Amino acid sequence: MKIAVLPGDGIGTEIVAEAVKVLQALDLKFEMETALVGGAAYEAHGHPLPESTLKLAKEADAVLFGAVGDWKYDKLDRPLRPEQAILGLRKHLGLFANFRPAICYEQLVGASSLKPELIAGLDILIIRELTGDIYFGQPRGRRIATDGHFPGSEEAFDTMRYSRPEIERIAHVAFQAARKRKAAGSEGRVTSVDKNNVLETSQLWKDVMVEIGLQYTDIALDHMLVDNAAMQLVKAPKKFDVLVTGNMFGDILSDEASMLTGSIGMLPSASMNANNQGLFEPSHGSAPDIAGKGIANPLATILSAAMMLRFSLNQGAAADRIEAAVKSVLEQGLRTADIYSAGTTRVSTLEMGDAVVKAL
Amino acid sequence: MKIAVLPGDGIGTEIVAEAVKVLQALDLKFEMETALVGGAAYEAHGHPLPESTLKLAKEADAVLFGAVGDWKYDKLDRPLRPEQAILGLRKHLGLFANFRPAICYEQLVGASSLKPELIAGLDILIIRELTGDIYFGQPRGRRIATDGHFPGSEEAFDTMRYSRPEIERIAHVAFQAARKRKAAGSEGRVTSVDKNNVLETSQLWKDVMVEIGLQYTDIALDHMLVDNAAMQLVKAPKKFDVLVTGNMFGDILSDEASMLTGSIGMLPSASMNANNQGLFEPSHGSAPDIAGKGIANPLATILSAAMMLRFSLNQGAAADRIEAAVKSVLEQGLRTADIYSAGTTRVSTLEMGDAVVKAL
Ligand SMILES: CC(C)[C@H](C(=O)O)[C@@H](O)C(=O)O
Ligand SMILES: CC(C)[C@H](C(=O)O)[C@@H](O)C(=O)O
Repeated sequence: MKIAVLPGDGIGTEIVAEAVKVLQALDLKFEMETALVGGAAYEAHGHPLPESTLKLAKEADAVLFGAVGDWKYDKLDRPLRPEQAILGLRKHLGLFANFRPAICYEQLVGASSLKPELIAGLDILIIRELTGDIYFGQPRGRRIATDGHFPGSEEAFDTMRYSRPEIERIAHVAFQAARKRKAAGSEGRVTSVDKNNVLETSQLWKDVMVEIGLQYTDIALDHMLVDNAAMQLVKAPKKFDVLVTGNMFGDILSDEASMLTGSIGMLPSASMNANNQGLFEPSHGSAPDIAGKGIANPLATILSAAMMLRFSLNQGAAADRIEAAVKSVLEQGLRTADIYSAGTTRVSTLEMGDAVVKAL
Repeated sequence: MKIAVLPGDGIGTEIVAEAVKVLQALDLKFEMETALVGGAAYEAHGHPLPESTLKLAKEADAVLFGAVGDWKYDKLDRPLRPEQAILGLRKHLGLFANFRPAICYEQLVGASSLKPELIAGLDILIIRELTGDIYFGQPRGRRIATDGHFPGSEEAFDTMRYSRPEIERIAHVAFQAARKRKAAGSEGRVTSVDKNNVLETSQLWKDVMVEIGLQYTDIALDHMLVDNAAMQLVKAPKKFDVLVTGNMFGDILSDEASMLTGSIGMLPSASMNANNQGLFEPSHGSAPDIAGKGIANPLATILSAAMMLRFSLNQGAAADRIEAAVKSVLEQGLRTADIYSAGTTRVSTLEMGDAVVKAL
C-alpha cells in the first residue's frame, strides 16, 4: 500500500504530520512518500503541481493531502497559483466523486451558529461531482462581445457543461452511498440539487438522475433547486440524507453545510476516481493566519486518513479504530483552539495528535 | 404615477391585495392596472408573460409583483413555465440591479435558525446583477460532445459571461448604495463575491470591481470567494455591509441570507433598470401549499411597495410611513402564522393588511 503524502502550505504541514503519526501507530505496513505541492512546490520548482509530485500521486494507491494557498500568491497568473495543484490532481487522477460529510459531533454542538436543536445529531453527506461543470468546461477566456447587452465591449466567458455519462456515474455513486447509509440506519434518500428552471445543463442533470434513480428502487429521490437548497440547509439541515450536485453548486453548498456544524476543523473529505484511488484532505483550508503556531486542529486530517483507509486501502477496521479514537479524545474534553469552550482542555496540534495515538 | 400590478400565482394574489390596500390608504394619486402573469397567465392566454402584460409593465413607472409558480407546471416545456415570466420581465425591462436587503427585525430574532447574538440587528444588503451571467448567456443547449471526458455522448451546456460595462454599472450601483448606507450609519463597505480562482468571468468581475472602486475612495472594497461567502454568511452575517455579486451566485447567496433571518416573509426586493423603473416583489415564492388559506404574510409585499415608492416613484416620505407602520404592527405583537410565536397574536393575511393601514 503506497500513500503519497502532500502536506502543502500553511497549516498543511502541521496537520498532515499528525495524521502520519496516527497512521504509523497502526499495525499496518504502508509505504509513505512525501512531496511538495501548492505554494511550497511553486517556491521550490516554479510550479504548484510539479511533474514529480503528479507522478507520485498517480502511482500511489491514495493521496493524503493537507491544504494549499496563501495570500502572497494572489498576484500570480492563475496557472501558477497554489489551488491549481488541487484542480490538476482532480483532473489528472480523474477524481470525479467528492464525498463531504457534514457531521455535528455531540460534544461540539455549541460551536455551531445554529440553535442546538437544529444541528444536534446532524449527519448528512454531500456528494459533489468534481471533474466536470464550469470548472473545466471549454471554451473559456476573454473576447470582444458580438452580442448581448454591450456588443463591441470586452467580455469574459466560461462554459458550464455535463455529459450524460458524467452525470450517470456520479448518480450511481450517490445512490450507492445512500444505500450504504440506509443499511446503517439512515433514511435512504438522495436529494439532487440543480437549477433546471434556468440552465440546460441542470435539465440534463435532473433527467439523468431520474433515469438512474429507477435502478435504485430502495432509495428515494427528490430534487431541489440550488437556491432553495442553500435555504433548506440553514433552515433544517437534518432533513437531508445524501445531497448530490454538480461541481460549482457543490463547492458552495458543501462549504455552507460544513460551516453550519461550527466545527469545520473536524470534517474530512474524500475525492475518488473509478479505480478506488482517492485523495483525502480536510474540508478546511490552509489558514495562513495561524500557520506555524502549532494550534491548528489536526482532527479533520486524521479523519481524512481514516476515510483513506476505508475507501482506498480496504482497511475498514483500522478506519474504525481511528474514528473511535477521535471520539474518545473529544470525550476526554481535549480541544484545539478552534473548538475550545469553557470547561474543556485546550491542547496544541501536536498534543491532539498524540492523544489520538494514545486512544487508538 | 402608473403602477402595473402583477399578482401572479399561489399566495401572490392574497399578498398583493394587501399591498394595494396599503398604497390606496396613502394620500397619493396612482393609476394602478392589474394583469395576469405566471401560471395564471398561462391558463388564460397560453403564455406566462403575455404581450399585453409585458406592454403594461413597460409603460408603467413601476411593477408591483406577487409571486409565480406551482408544482403543476413543472412538466411544461421550460419557455412556458411560470418563472419564465420573471426572467422575461427582467430581460425586457433591463432590470439589471437587484436589491435584496436581509434584515432581522428585533421582534423576530427568535425566528432565526441562528443563535440570537449572531443575528440580532442584522441589516445587510445583497446586490445581485440580474440580466447577465449564465442566466442569459448564449450559446446554450444540447449537443454531442466532441471533447471532454466522454466525446461522442450527449451533453448539455450553458455559457457564463459578463462584459466590462455590465460589471461597471452594477459596481456603481453597489458603491452608491454603500455610500447611502454609510450616510445612515453603516460601515461603508462593499464585498464583491466571485470565484476568480476558477472562472475567467469572475476574474474580469474582480478586475472591474477594483477599477470602479478607485472612484469611491470613501467606500472600502473587499473580495470574497463564493464558497467562503456562503460560509461567512452562516458564521458571522453581521460582518457584511453591501455584498455585490453576479446573477448565479447572487441567486444562491441572497436566498441563503434571507433564510438566515428566519423571517423571509418579511423581506422585500427591488429590481431596477437604468431609468429608475423597477419591479418590486417579496423575496419569498408563491407557496402553493398555503395558497387560498388567507394565512400568508403580506408584509414582504407591503415593504416591497414601500421600496417602490422610494426607488421608482420618488415618494420617500410615504415609504417611511409604510415602514414605520410595519414596525408598529410588529410592536403590537401581530403575527401571521410564519412568524408566530407564543405570547403574540396570530392574525390572517387580511387582518395584517388592515393593521398596517390602521398604523399608517
Ligand atoms: C481551491 C478551489 C479551486 C477549490 C474548489 O473550488 O473546488 C476549493 O474551494 C474546494 O472546494 O476544494
Ligand atoms: C424563479 C427563478 C428563475 C428566479 C431566479 O433564479 O432568479 C428566482 O429564484 C429568484 O431568485 O428570483
